[in-house]
Amino acid sequence: MSTRITFLGAAGFEIVGPEHRILVDPFLTTSPRAPIGAEELEPPDVILVSHAAFDHLGDTAAIALRTGAPVVCDGGVRRILLDRGVPSDQIRATVWGIVVEVGGVLVRPVECHHWSAGELADGTAVVGTPLAFIIETEPGVRIYHYGDTAIFDMRLIGELYGPTVGLLGCTVPHELSARVPGAGRLLSGEMDADECARTAEMLGLRLAVACHYFTQDDEVARFLELVPRYDTTGARQAVAPEVGDTVVVDAERHTIEEGRHSATGDLR
Amino acid sequence: MSTRITFLGAAGFEIVGPEHRILVDPFLTTSPRAPIGAEELEPPDVILVSHAAFDHLGDTAAIALRTGAPVVCDGGVRRILLDRGVPSDQIRATVWGIVVEVGGVLVRPVECHHWSAGELADGTAVVGTPLAFIIETEPGVRIYHYGDTAIFDMRLIGELYGPTVGLLGCTVPHELSARVPGAGRLLSGEMDADECARTAEMLGLRLAVACHYFTQDDEVARFLELVPRYDTTGARQAVAPEVGDTVVVDAERHTIEEGRHSATGDLR
Amino acid sequence: MSTRITFLGAAGFEIVGPEHRILVDPFLTTSPRAPIGAEELEPPDVILVSHAAFDHLGDTAAIALRTGAPVVCDGGVRRILLDRGVPSDQIRATVWGIVVEVGGVLVRPVECHHWSAGELADGTAVVGTPLAFIIETEPGVRIYHYGDTAIFDMRLIGELYGPTVGLLGCTVPHELSARVPGAGRLLSGEMDADECARTAEMLGLRLAVACHYFTQDDEVARFLELVPRYDTTGARQAVAPEVGDTVVVDAERHTIEEGRHSATGDLR
Repeated sequence: MSTRITFLGAAGFEIVGPEHRILVDPFLTTSPRAPIGAEELEPPDVILVSHAAFDHLGDTAAIALRTGAPVVCDGGVRRILLDRGVPSDQIRATVWGIVVEVGGVLVRPVECHHWSAGELADGTAVVGTPLAFIIETEPGVRIYHYGDTAIFDMRLIGELYGPTVGLLGCTVPHELSARVPGAGRLLSGEMDADECARTAEMLGLRLAVACHYFTQDDEVARFLELVPRYDTTGARQAVAPEVGDTVVVDAERHTIEEGRHSATGDLR
Repeated sequence: MSTRITFLGAAGFEIVGPEHRILVDPFLTTSPRAPIGAEELEPPDVILVSHAAFDHLGDTAAIALRTGAPVVCDGGVRRILLDRGVPSDQIRATVWGIVVEVGGVLVRPVECHHWSAGELADGTAVVGTPLAFIIETEPGVRIYHYGDTAIFDMRLIGELYGPTVGLLGCTVPHELSARVPGAGRLLSGEMDADECARTAEMLGLRLAVACHYFTQDDEVARFLELVPRYDTTGARQAVAPEVGDTVVVDAERHTIEEGRHSATGDLR
Repeated sequence: MSTRITFLGAAGFEIVGPEHRILVDPFLTTSPRAPIGAEELEPPDVILVSHAAFDHLGDTAAIALRTGAPVVCDGGVRRILLDRGVPSDQIRATVWGIVVEVGGVLVRPVECHHWSAGELADGTAVVGTPLAFIIETEPGVRIYHYGDTAIFDMRLIGELYGPTVGLLGCTVPHELSARVPGAGRLLSGEMDADECARTAEMLGLRLAVACHYFTQDDEVARFLELVPRYDTTGARQAVAPEVGDTVVVDAERHTIEEGRHSATGDLR
């Protein structure tokens, strides 16, 4: 038994466990580097959306409409999905602490210290409550998705829910910077490599998986270097998949399978 | 001298101390199990609303209009109350840390890690900042209302403000589930029994009072069982009132008076 | 080398370091006690706005339009500034953790547990994510601006970013109370003197600077008294500038220069 976690770029993942197929923050159609088209994805049991940012909400509406997959999200993302035609009974809005079962998948939303802001088609601003998620795909595999949170004291989350694998953004997807209007420039993502490595320790992870990039930069390298430094368990490992790669995990170990195209960078 | 805390269902309470009558999150008219009608309630000195959810905002506007009672709430709830005709000078919007005196009652809003979202009559979405509250009704009786917060590290709140009684939601009001649209189902409230029991310990409560239900379920039973397990003081007690019951507390002890109708379930 | 921090009233500061001029929360035109007119201020390299409250957003739009200075703020404040005619490429919206370089100044936004709510000219409500800031003006001078946060466990912020100087609101600007509609009255600001003094300890500050007032009240006096009580370093100092005063700091020491007018109270 094992769980396959394929990195789709930014904070997007397709997670295929023994029982369920879970899509998180699928950003593909306008991605600078997508390993698969949104229309090619197999129908997921559930789609999790952490917040309303364009590189997280991504293709959710289209995939939900094509496949009928239900979506778990915050109240702001719900309004945007309704605005894009996704039926109300296909959406489950929730918030920190309210565990839901959707598409047969048990989803635990946990605190995410970020924002969730977007717009309806007519320009109406929408604000919600960003989410991080924990899902258990098989016994001993509890996957935490950070949802773009900034660092905060996550020891209670680690103690209460015991995530084993963390999908942690440690840098900023540089390719998207030009799409964000504004003065000056972004120097970091919501967490840098050091903050991420501390987060892995606070959560008590067994495996820390870097994300929030399309191509690896120095911060990703630093993440791989720093995760062991903060590790008081002596058992934590860190990986940084390329877009398209699949991290295969079970309760005991993990391996990485290279994506079809990732070695050559010949992505879709 | 004593304070009477009557459970109105969901997270609603009427708190009558030696000096003031305080109404919190009054949800009665559309409640599946209300011990009293909104129009029968004696005029409170102040109404506290934790957030904009329909089972917390409840009958606030009607009670405020009928009785002239002032309301303490967040900025989002304020907009909804204005929209429903409550005069501006009857509403006090506040946020975490800003202690207010309203209707003669000193109200301390503290952090609540939840959401506050609702709608105006024309469908305009409203978002605010959810509140938990601490009020001291008499010397040695400091009541914490959780406001639907998820668990977080509340030790600082315990240390700073020393609440003695906590009104803590440990389950989800199942009777309301059908009124919340969406895919799948809710498996828990914002906190489960274990999280609530930990919260009681972090806050250093003397008395932990369960709420956020209309009829008691297994989580409520588990709450009563777990509160003593996390208790490092050896002095903490836990109670789970039926809707309509009154918890009578003073600085030394508490008793429970059964509601007129609760024994037979013959609620309004 | 030194950094000059001039108190403009409320939470407003002009910070002039060896390399940059930084304006924070400039509230002048409708201030009850402003040491300088908004139109007299020298063009800043960057304006930081913590949240949308009128006494923090203040004259930001006018100063940005007159001087061309870029603004760092949350997404809600950005919408208000756009509504007031500030060009999009002059505004940088960010959130906790995303470090930005704007106007040559490196700005680190950190968690602020408050609200950010305002209105567009047509009355549309706007909600954002409040910000606190850390900026390093010279080696060894890292200034934390609290942005109206309530107290929370800030030890991680202290450990990670090592602020040396903290601008901390310890009371409520009484002169503005009448401008805030509502029932009852405000008894405190977002933090009181005791909470501020604890915050200074959690952040590990060298110098704690009181603010969020126009005239000093008992809470300010209590702040000066309590900061040393919570100090476990034996090296922390506390000051409470009058509006118009300048705190001059370097990595080793600080002095206070009285404002031109502050001795006589003959403020603009």
